[in-house]
Amino acid sequence: MARTASLSGFPEWLPEERLVEQHVLDTLRRVFELHGFASIETRSVETVGQLLRKGEIDKEVYGLSRLQDDEGGTPDRGGKADQHALALHFDLTVPFARYVVENAGYLAFPFRRYQIQKVWRGERPQEGRAREFTQADIDVVGDGELPFRYDVEIALVIAEALSALPIPDFQLRVNNRKLAEGFYRGIGLTDTAGVLRSIDKLEKIGPAKVAELLKSELGATDEQAQKALQLAGIRTGDLSFVAQVRALGVSNDLLEEGLNELEQVIDAAVQRAPGKVLADLSIARGLDYYTGTVVETVLVGHEQLGSICSGGRYDALASKGNRKFPGVGLSIGVTRLVSRILSQDLAKASRSVPTAVLVALANDDNWGAAQDVAAQLRSRGIPTEVAAKAEKFGKQIKFADRRGIPFVWFTDDDGTHQVKDIRSGKQVVAAPETWMPPAADLVVQVATAGAVPAQVS
Amino acid sequence: MARTASLSGFPEWLPEERLVEQHVLDTLRRVFELHGFASIETRSVETVGQLLRKGEIDKEVYGLSRLQDDEGGTPDRGGKADQHALALHFDLTVPFARYVVENAGYLAFPFRRYQIQKVWRGERPQEGRAREFTQADIDVVGDGELPFRYDVEIALVIAEALSALPIPDFQLRVNNRKLAEGFYRGIGLTDTAGVLRSIDKLEKIGPAKVAELLKSELGATDEQAQKALQLAGIRTGDLSFVAQVRALGVSNDLLEEGLNELEQVIDAAVQRAPGKVLADLSIARGLDYYTGTVVETVLVGHEQLGSICSGGRYDALASKGNRKFPGVGLSIGVTRLVSRILSQDLAKASRSVPTAVLVALANDDNWGAAQDVAAQLRSRGIPTEVAAKAEKFGKQIKFADRRGIPFVWFTDDDGTHQVKDIRSGKQVVAAPETWMPPAADLVVQVATAGAVPAQVS
Repeated sequence: MARTASLSGFPEWLPEERLVEQHVLDTLRRVFELHGFASIETRSVETVGQLLRKGEIDKEVYGLSRLQDDEGGTPDRGGKADQHALALHFDLTVPFARYVVENAGYLAFPFRRYQIQKVWRGERPQEGRAREFTQADIDVVGDGELPFRYDVEIALVIAEALSALPIPDFQLRVNNRKLAEGFYRGIGLTDTAGVLRSIDKLEKIGPAKVAELLKSELGATDEQAQKALQLAGIRTGDLSFVAQVRALGVSNDLLEEGLNELEQVIDAAVQRAPGKVLADLSIARGLDYYTGTVVETVLVGHEQLGSICSGGRYDALASKGNRKFPGVGLSIGVTRLVSRILSQDLAKASRSVPTAVLVALANDDNWGAAQDVAAQLRSRGIPTEVAAKAEKFGKQIKFADRRGIPFVWFTDDDGTHQVKDIRSGKQVVAAPETWMPPAADLVVQVATAGAVPAQVS
Repeated sequence: MARTASLSGFPEWLPEERLVEQHVLDTLRRVFELHGFASIETRSVETVGQLLRKGEIDKEVYGLSRLQDDEGGTPDRGGKADQHALALHFDLTVPFARYVVENAGYLAFPFRRYQIQKVWRGERPQEGRAREFTQADIDVVGDGELPFRYDVEIALVIAEALSALPIPDFQLRVNNRKLAEGFYRGIGLTDTAGVLRSIDKLEKIGPAKVAELLKSELGATDEQAQKALQLAGIRTGDLSFVAQVRALGVSNDLLEEGLNELEQVIDAAVQRAPGKVLADLSIARGLDYYTGTVVETVLVGHEQLGSICSGGRYDALASKGNRKFPGVGLSIGVTRLVSRILSQDLAKASRSVPTAVLVALANDDNWGAAQDVAAQLRSRGIPTEVAAKAEKFGKQIKFADRRGIPFVWFTDDDGTHQVKDIRSGKQVVAAPETWMPPAADLVVQVATAGAVPAQVS
């Protein structure tokens, strides 16, 4: 990872790095599909009007304009004023909401989908923050109503998916907006959005400054500020957070509802994903319009990387007239994870190409016969290349070696086939119809440092 | 396919349509990897300077500008003048060339890669021509030189890949620029690019008008124009094109070289991909900077759709100082193919979700036990959902039925498990540790009209 991107904020991987990324993507897809999530993709562009639908956004959006426009004008140009101008999506939630509304007549609700695509944000690039990056989202969306159970399920699916990746230990930190807002109301703070905005800064500016903010901007008393901070200080890996909240002596119906919801999530997680999910009452999720469960996720020991998976519950992910589509979902920052895996050598591909066997050429006329051997190997799932020229065998072996191709196939003039493991030098007589490499050599393995290699699907 | 895209030129698929697209993408990936092609992705944006590097381009490019730029200006805005401005790539060849130059020190040459990504062109949308679409490219690139054999191999790999797709019969139509240019020189026409440009219009305007063009624009004589048209009229599925060209009585070294190259491609194809590859001496490939083999591909019976796979040989795909990187590659228009498959019902997914089994709930307290059953099924690769609410069994069966989920799992109060095939109504006692659905129901199948279903990987 000595290389830096030639365009800041737009990372690109070498083939052996891309294999690690593919392993991550394939693993996520496999887990999502095992849980019945259907794949969709949405177009990369939305209208500016759609992107700004929820009002204020804090994302930097890239607008589009056609270069070769004859009038020299910019009909597609993303001016703030032009709601019909096109721009690249900055997340997968806004496009998904639009997709649900447009296709509501064709979808079966509750609709569960996964979506793995690139998104773009014109922000200042830094580690963990790219301008083009891949997100992997799962959401369940209902028509009119959506049982709370999906909040529990989504958290468990994500815990399972992240557990299958070659990454360090992680923690899903879960809170509930109803719990927080009910609590703030219970202590007499009515601008709950304002309180959340301040609490969101806790990690950045510390409790003393948050208390100041609460008092100066929201008119909180000393006691109110302290109570809000006490709530935000609660973090438990079990159900003890319930008693800790109750001990603060605040009573409010919304608080009770949120407490009950969060209890359901943590209760299931303690059993089904032990150690992976915490109740963390400091989680606020800034400007986003969540209405219940909220989640952020950190890699243990890599907390400064920021959240690698975030999301939560929207009472109205989308709406169409009076019809509301509540949703709950989480979004994994794939590029953020892959960048960290690569920069810290957390996992490695066993070779830089899919090829398991190189069929060598004894002379240039044998290319057709070599292709026959290759076709037989491929027909049994063995990735195979044929040498393009009958160079010296040493050179052909070097060709394989440079790419990490483990086996080179030779055919003698008398038609005898032999295959050489170029790592050990061991060479055996083999038949193209039956020979198989060991399973660990058949396809590229992505191995975690110190763990059992995982197979790339 | 009654739906039309909500934004013209930006197609989006329903979940059951996306399954067809995924099947196409998975199939291409599998074939490419079996042939040892490594995956890479490049960033979606290039600088305008990079996109215009080859001089004139006939593609409509989308430039980018940051909407929330504080100065109200457009620093990233794609003006023609600003070479550093950012724009979306319009193909995968230009970005690949840049990638090769930037990473030449890290790659093993000849380097073979596949690249499956979206590209964007701001053209007028029509069937087969979208503004955002997916291409699947394979290329082999050499350092300094690249044996011609790769031209042969690339054509065979593509023929194998297309044969594995749920599409009608196809024809790769292959020509060779050396053959054509040598021939034109041999008959005394020196503006070979000009002749190619005219010949490229053959299908659109017919031979009489092409002859007029050749005479009026390039000063060709009647006889020269007729010879050029005679050459373009040659199309054979075997090696007889060689004799037909020779019969035109033109002699030129470059012509001989091209004739020999094309003969190698067709000779291998006759043996290894019979009926799939033609020598078609009308293929010109317009403005693109090919230097040898050129390929276009049509779906038989869908010729008006245009080429579904095109490409060829560049003597200098990229260069770095004096160092040249010759390449040969082909690009499949995935979105064009998938649009046609869907609009003409050429293939269909067996259900709209990955789920094979819905675990029903007898009462709401059983959710945990149902999750245990689901986890056991998933651990053996069976995609499984759990009902979110203990609704009437009829309603839970309807939930499965609407999605095409073939099996519903019931657990009685005494712990007996039963699984019902909701298509036949047949219900059997089953154990979550051992029960397997038939292979055809395990994962979604994509079936071609009248063909054996193919398994989605």
